[in-house]
Amino acid sequence: MKNVTIAFLGGGNIGGCVYRLLEDMKQEIAARCGLGITVKKVLVKDRESFIPNGIPEELLVFDRQEIMADPDISLVCEFMGGEHPAADFMLEALKAGKTVVTANKVALALHWSELQAAAQAQGVGLYYEASVCGAIPIIATLNGSLQANRIDRLMGIINGTTNYILSRMYKNGEDYDLVLRDAQALGLAEPNPAFDVEGMDAAYKLSILASLAFHGRVTYEKVYREGITGVTAMDIACGKEMGYVLKLLAIAKRDGNRVEVRVHPTFLPEHHPLAQVDGSFNAVYLYGHSCEDMMLQGFGAGTPTASAVVSDVLNACTAPAHAFPAFANTAEADASLHFTGNWETRYFIRVSAKDAPGVLAKVADCFARENVSIATMLQKGAVDEGRVMLIFVTHATHERAMQAALSRLDPEIARLESMIRVEE
Amino acid sequence: MKNVTIAFLGGGNIGGCVYRLLEDMKQEIAARCGLGITVKKVLVKDRESFIPNGIPEELLVFDRQEIMADPDISLVCEFMGGEHPAADFMLEALKAGKTVVTANKVALALHWSELQAAAQAQGVGLYYEASVCGAIPIIATLNGSLQANRIDRLMGIINGTTNYILSRMYKNGEDYDLVLRDAQALGLAEPNPAFDVEGMDAAYKLSILASLAFHGRVTYEKVYREGITGVTAMDIACGKEMGYVLKLLAIAKRDGNRVEVRVHPTFLPEHHPLAQVDGSFNAVYLYGHSCEDMMLQGFGAGTPTASAVVSDVLNACTAPAHAFPAFANTAEADASLHFTGNWETRYFIRVSAKDAPGVLAKVADCFARENVSIATMLQKGAVDEGRVMLIFVTHATHERAMQAALSRLDPEIARLESMIRVEE
Repeated sequence: MKNVTIAFLGGGNIGGCVYRLLEDMKQEIAARCGLGITVKKVLVKDRESFIPNGIPEELLVFDRQEIMADPDISLVCEFMGGEHPAADFMLEALKAGKTVVTANKVALALHWSELQAAAQAQGVGLYYEASVCGAIPIIATLNGSLQANRIDRLMGIINGTTNYILSRMYKNGEDYDLVLRDAQALGLAEPNPAFDVEGMDAAYKLSILASLAFHGRVTYEKVYREGITGVTAMDIACGKEMGYVLKLLAIAKRDGNRVEVRVHPTFLPEHHPLAQVDGSFNAVYLYGHSCEDMMLQGFGAGTPTASAVVSDVLNACTAPAHAFPAFANTAEADASLHFTGNWETRYFIRVSAKDAPGVLAKVADCFARENVSIATMLQKGAVDEGRVMLIFVTHATHERAMQAALSRLDPEIARLESMIRVEE
Repeated sequence: MKNVTIAFLGGGNIGGCVYRLLEDMKQEIAARCGLGITVKKVLVKDRESFIPNGIPEELLVFDRQEIMADPDISLVCEFMGGEHPAADFMLEALKAGKTVVTANKVALALHWSELQAAAQAQGVGLYYEASVCGAIPIIATLNGSLQANRIDRLMGIINGTTNYILSRMYKNGEDYDLVLRDAQALGLAEPNPAFDVEGMDAAYKLSILASLAFHGRVTYEKVYREGITGVTAMDIACGKEMGYVLKLLAIAKRDGNRVEVRVHPTFLPEHHPLAQVDGSFNAVYLYGHSCEDMMLQGFGAGTPTASAVVSDVLNACTAPAHAFPAFANTAEADASLHFTGNWETRYFIRVSAKDAPGVLAKVADCFARENVSIATMLQKGAVDEGRVMLIFVTHATHERAMQAALSRLDPEIARLESMIRVEE
């Protein structure tokens, strides 16, 4: 039996789940892994803001030095969230020779290279399965099980809040604002929901996943990002009529060294495996040249995150040596990857147009001049006085050509209501 | 750069895929893993039966001693399939101090404990991700990423041949025999299909998965097995009408120490994630007490199997030490697990009954006497002269009660046409 003494940075919801899971699994952990794990200290801001969650109050400490300077503590779990001070504390722990297990996508995405360098310099580990998609073993899969692949494409539903909102809007035809308020009331969205609904959360996660998938550093700044705040019940209804489901997708594609990474609302054909992933589920769909199509689906928040944290702790404590991905994990984006914003995809375009002869021809001409080819078109009755709604779905088109075509529209004649990318 | 010399036992289809993938990935393997992998020898029966597949003919050997006695060769990949002589050759290789990577579920399921004991005694590795569900990282996930779970339930579509057949029968209403012949013509089913369609393939895989999920040895003999040869277009059509999709499921459930492991045709509600897994796809759905619901989906045969083999080779060559699951991996089933055949599930029962007053009451009475409670019932018009078709779906019922109720049916009055278990 090997005894390992650990500490938590953060004693909130996830910290409580992890503590209770470690207690709950004590016997199995001893039997399966030959480990006795003791949580010795839990860093919180102050006693007043600590909400009882199973962590004994006598473990609470308020000064991180009590953990950093404690030679008994060989592993630290970080659940503080956000960039600072979490990244600084993790760095300090690593430099103090402690292995770090983190559920923090922001601090990892922004400070990965220095955290990894510190871990490698000290011969300790850095584990972060819980930072992306909770219990879904996507980090282990990219690092280990799919080594024999060139991954060309990865698309994920990696934010539960937005997927809950979009699933309800799709199912019930409800408006964004209403569903958001409900999600907030249910605790599925934050009082300030921007981090989720603006796509930041998904973009941080995508920068981690794309780096591992492409074996080169994809920084957060390289991720194109568009949230769901502009999505309307009308767009979802029109898409549904045409057989599409709207999801906030995180997309990473690679063609040789040409790489695109983007997070935005996306229409998927209703039979696509990702289109079926509803509510708070997360899923990652990918295509590797030898594994071909693969999808991993599960829960990305709450207790499932604790599943990933505790599994990481057990892996860290039993690993004969700590492994690190072998790509050049620099602070800057990998110079060998050529990032492009001019990706090729299909587009759903909705315009409200003057109900007059020749208008359709004028709109079609804007597309034609930029070589944007239309795959399907739908005209709906009057939206308001004297205007009709036109919906186009294009064939595969470059983003720049699409934007150029849209800029040709004369808003007096045809006003752009929405432009939503379509994947397959 | 670490150079590793390896050999193949078997040079057929999978061997060819693995050889070509190793060649194709040479540069990436050097860059990502710091490895140079050389295939030195490939054991085949004789030169005449070798079908060119990219493996250079000069690598072929016909006597296994050329591999076993070669001190250069530190790792052996086994693609022979079947129990003997594959298991014997693997054992020999392990005893000769060579790590073994295998795609062979049969030899592994039947000889796991002695293979693992030999590997541990020699300090070499035994890797078998490719033995179950091809590229899907289910072995790594159960062994590593889900350590912090008690897995209560695992249900899988783990045989591509039967899933192809059942998907087509569901989609097109075609008969079993016709679809089987097509599958054979397409190379998706063997000329002698028994191993797949009788459920043996799925049962071997389930014995491996259930052992890992339950941390105790679940031997092949413990798996209840029923194939798809008795499945009719009529059953599938009736199920479809009631909102069910038919799949050959491999099911492992655990409640405390009470364990059930079974492979049989199963109706699933059409919205169940596994119900959407069509064609040659494999998928494993599981529930762990901390990860909650999770599903892994991908391809289980062909090149995707090579993805798992080569990833295992790379993991084996870079691992600082080889890991083994920590359960008592004995030749016998784990004595602490109580295996039951009297599981509880729902049942779809189809009978053809005499079209006469009082018949429904008599059938219902057979169920009532065994406390089998009916959830839904459907009567269809005359099937043949003077007989009607009655379909019942029960509430959750014990297998023995269901069997007892069915044995009460008087075949003169109501003949049992089919009994298909229903999961949720």
